[in-house]
Amino acid sequence: MIKQIALLQSSAKARKESGLFAAEGLRLLDDAAENGIRFEKLILSQTALEKYREKAALLMRNAAEWFVVPDSLFTRLSDTKNPQGICAVCAIPEQDARQIDREGRYVALENVADPSNLGAIARTAEALGASGLIVSGDGCDPYSPKALRASMGTLLRLPLFVREDFVSFLPSLGLTLYACVVEAMAEKISEVSLGAGCAVIIGNEANGITPALRERADRLVTIPMKGRAESLNAAAAAAIAVWEMMK
Amino acid sequence: MIKQIALLQSSAKARKESGLFAAEGLRLLDDAAENGIRFEKLILSQTALEKYREKAALLMRNAAEWFVVPDSLFTRLSDTKNPQGICAVCAIPEQDARQIDREGRYVALENVADPSNLGAIARTAEALGASGLIVSGDGCDPYSPKALRASMGTLLRLPLFVREDFVSFLPSLGLTLYACVVEAMAEKISEVSLGAGCAVIIGNEANGITPALRERADRLVTIPMKGRAESLNAAAAAAIAVWEMMK
Repeated sequence: MIKQIALLQSSAKARKESGLFAAEGLRLLDDAAENGIRFEKLILSQTALEKYREKAALLMRNAAEWFVVPDSLFTRLSDTKNPQGICAVCAIPEQDARQIDREGRYVALENVADPSNLGAIARTAEALGASGLIVSGDGCDPYSPKALRASMGTLLRLPLFVREDFVSFLPSLGLTLYACVVEAMAEKISEVSLGAGCAVIIGNEANGITPALRERADRLVTIPMKGRAESLNAAAAAAIAVWEMMK
Repeated sequence: MIKQIALLQSSAKARKESGLFAAEGLRLLDDAAENGIRFEKLILSQTALEKYREKAALLMRNAAEWFVVPDSLFTRLSDTKNPQGICAVCAIPEQDARQIDREGRYVALENVADPSNLGAIARTAEALGASGLIVSGDGCDPYSPKALRASMGTLLRLPLFVREDFVSFLPSLGLTLYACVVEAMAEKISEVSLGAGCAVIIGNEANGITPALRERADRLVTIPMKGRAESLNAAAAAAIAVWEMMK
């Protein structure tokens, strides 16, 4: 059990192959359960069981199996410094592309590498009311512990689609694709009307959007910069792009 | 020297009382020197002196004194895990309130507590071309090592004013003050025209803007949220607010 959890915490490959991920902390597990994510295993420390008796009982109903372990053992399998004493092995939810709303407004992330950025962008997308997130398979895995934590659970609440075939999948959805680029020649994002049925695409922090996807985007949009180009980080650029799409 | 640097790294009080701060790394020191910040002391490790000979020579001209120390000693005074081997004790630049441009567009931060947020907001402000940052004395100190690093040097490049008397100082500038709040009754920020001669005020992450300052703001503006209220973090909210001010 400890080995399985350690592997699910550290390895995106293990998560993809098993269709499982590890989630830790009451709030995250609440979010998971509320959003229909099943627990294969729920693990509580003895202290947590006493402290959170009622909540734990509710979460147990969502679990195929549950275990109560000594605090010292829990500390070993925890991903955090001060563990709450509750974690679970969860099933990655099924992603049905037919659930993508052709009139919706989506945030598409191509190879965003930093879990803090991924988490922050998910928070912004939820706060501003985006329809969901579509994430390429080669960036930071949204089911990594860091991304989940940075998103404050948003990644478990928002409709989320992770696609290995991102570059062909995205254009197949019938959404208007707006690629966010750092180029003076692109259209200023505030001068484009991003209506229903669209997606804004945010690229990798260092390399931007790949040429293959860029070619398939409907329009190139930009946030004009006056200071140094490196100044606007991916999460800030995404906040502005999502705002322009949703406002 | 080690004690002084450790103190300037860890204590905002020590920085305020001495008018000095510690900065580490070539890029940060380049930014400091380029922006007229004098080095009281420049400290290089032996390895760094050899590796960055030309750059070091330039930085030495900006220093009242300089020292070359063994690598092992440098590691002790460094604030980072993998030190480049170059740091300085710098003079906090003089802040002359008369330099505030009454036709400018400023970002005012009241008690923003997290150095990552402060750094990210500074980056956004620079990227979008804001006139400068006005920061209250009771939040995260912009001259803390974490804030400087998170800002990627922006805090040394942007006009920056740190004021203990923030609540009385800000209204005295003749700028139109837009307080960003999380309230359905406030004006939607995209429906307000934030013209020349204004400042957007971002408050503390947990508590928002203080009632005292809120009373003195000209208008209350908001970013309407559809998801959970906690979702939009201070840096994302600031990115949107600065964008609306600058676009």
